[in-house]
Amino acid sequence: MAELNVTSPANPRLKAVAALRRRRTREEEGVTVVDGYEELRLAVGAGVVPRTLLYCPELMLDPDEQLALVDEVRALGATTIRCARSAFEKVAYREGPDGFVAVVPAAGVALSHLVLPPDPLVVVVEALEKPGNLGSVLRTADAAGVAAVVAADPATDWGNPNVVRASKGAVFSVPVAAASLAEVREWLHVNDIRIVATTPHTDVLHTAVDYRGAVAIAVGTEKTGLTDELLAAADARVRIPMAGQVNSLNAGVSAAVVVYEAVRQRSS
Amino acid sequence: MAELNVTSPANPRLKAVAALRRRRTREEEGVTVVDGYEELRLAVGAGVVPRTLLYCPELMLDPDEQLALVDEVRALGATTIRCARSAFEKVAYREGPDGFVAVVPAAGVALSHLVLPPDPLVVVVEALEKPGNLGSVLRTADAAGVAAVVAADPATDWGNPNVVRASKGAVFSVPVAAASLAEVREWLHVNDIRIVATTPHTDVLHTAVDYRGAVAIAVGTEKTGLTDELLAAADARVRIPMAGQVNSLNAGVSAAVVVYEAVRQRSS
Repeated sequence: MAELNVTSPANPRLKAVAALRRRRTREEEGVTVVDGYEELRLAVGAGVVPRTLLYCPELMLDPDEQLALVDEVRALGATTIRCARSAFEKVAYREGPDGFVAVVPAAGVALSHLVLPPDPLVVVVEALEKPGNLGSVLRTADAAGVAAVVAADPATDWGNPNVVRASKGAVFSVPVAAASLAEVREWLHVNDIRIVATTPHTDVLHTAVDYRGAVAIAVGTEKTGLTDELLAAADARVRIPMAGQVNSLNAGVSAAVVVYEAVRQRSS
Repeated sequence: MAELNVTSPANPRLKAVAALRRRRTREEEGVTVVDGYEELRLAVGAGVVPRTLLYCPELMLDPDEQLALVDEVRALGATTIRCARSAFEKVAYREGPDGFVAVVPAAGVALSHLVLPPDPLVVVVEALEKPGNLGSVLRTADAAGVAAVVAADPATDWGNPNVVRASKGAVFSVPVAAASLAEVREWLHVNDIRIVATTPHTDVLHTAVDYRGAVAIAVGTEKTGLTDELLAAADARVRIPMAGQVNSLNAGVSAAVVVYEAVRQRSS
């Protein structure tokens, strides 16, 4: 591809990238925006083939080393566009952009396309909205070797650039999907995956159930928790013991505590 | 105290609160800023007596209910200052302020003033910087019933308003202290508290050591981990198993996984 050099933020290619801030536009085009060198490196390492890369050497922490990623992405067939700082800053999402913004195929597959190992450990996130929490769940899932993270009735799409960033790129290394709760329930049923639901409204501790075999750990939002529908569908309902006054763990933290209890049981 | 009504952001009392954005000013005055209704409610519930409360009914989600907290704080002896929206927004820290900003005595005591139960479970955070991670550790400590959270060589003070907010007020419900690493080591030694250090550079899993008795779990920054000095001083070094490609858990998540393994062992 030819190398382009853009100095104006009014350039139509830059405006097209900026338009991807809207979820609907991302979904219509089937793309995700990756903002950041480290995140892009992880995405490419996970097999992602970017379509477009905007880059700005002036903003790179270490241009000598990092420009190699521009070459690598170009070699994969992406259009690479060198931007002046003022133009680049118009399309970057993060504060303190580091000179890399890429447009990549959307993260996530249809539920029916998820490929599961035998006895998978799955995480279901219901209606989670905060990109930081979703990113945290994805990092945990990556670290814990979770087979898939499935969003039920998601309030935020996997392609949200803040999710991509908060996940440090794990949204590309962990298999993810999104569907309605009804579809997710059907998929779990068909695949014979038991549901362990996390909720404060039970006396069963998260350490008291068996996570071996095919298991989905379901987590809800900090404010409202899981829906009654999902709780009713669960095979077990567990809570993390809470001694304190604030009485609430961050949703990402709750997920990690339960997921790692499952890892402990499954590896012993 | 008399009720004040301020409409100008140039009012000296408001400017004095705005000046507390600086750590040095907070430390000189021995105060912390609490920004938010929920956080203030938790702080007051934990026994904190505010000195000053700035409030703005226009910004409150539910003034009928929330104004009761203004009365409660006034009854504790605080100066309460009603602010016009434009004036209030100049002193609020958070995006989307909710009409409550209070100045309270600084969170945290001297290390020697921490009161420990028998066989305490303690968390030591070394050089942690991100308010979100510190807040997450505090929420976990509150939930898990941790006896104290001690910052060694802290890069961020406990009174940082973003820490207060990220902790959802747990910075006031959990005993916290800060000191140099040398002082923290001495304090642990004198109190006969074993150190379990978390680090990726070991083969020992976090589930393989004994957390009963007097134990301090030490966590470092995501980027650099714990210092060699702390690692060398530790009685055990443990890692959380990581299967993935991103190969890093959020510091707050790592702390929670290890703390809850300790809780599991200590309650069984």
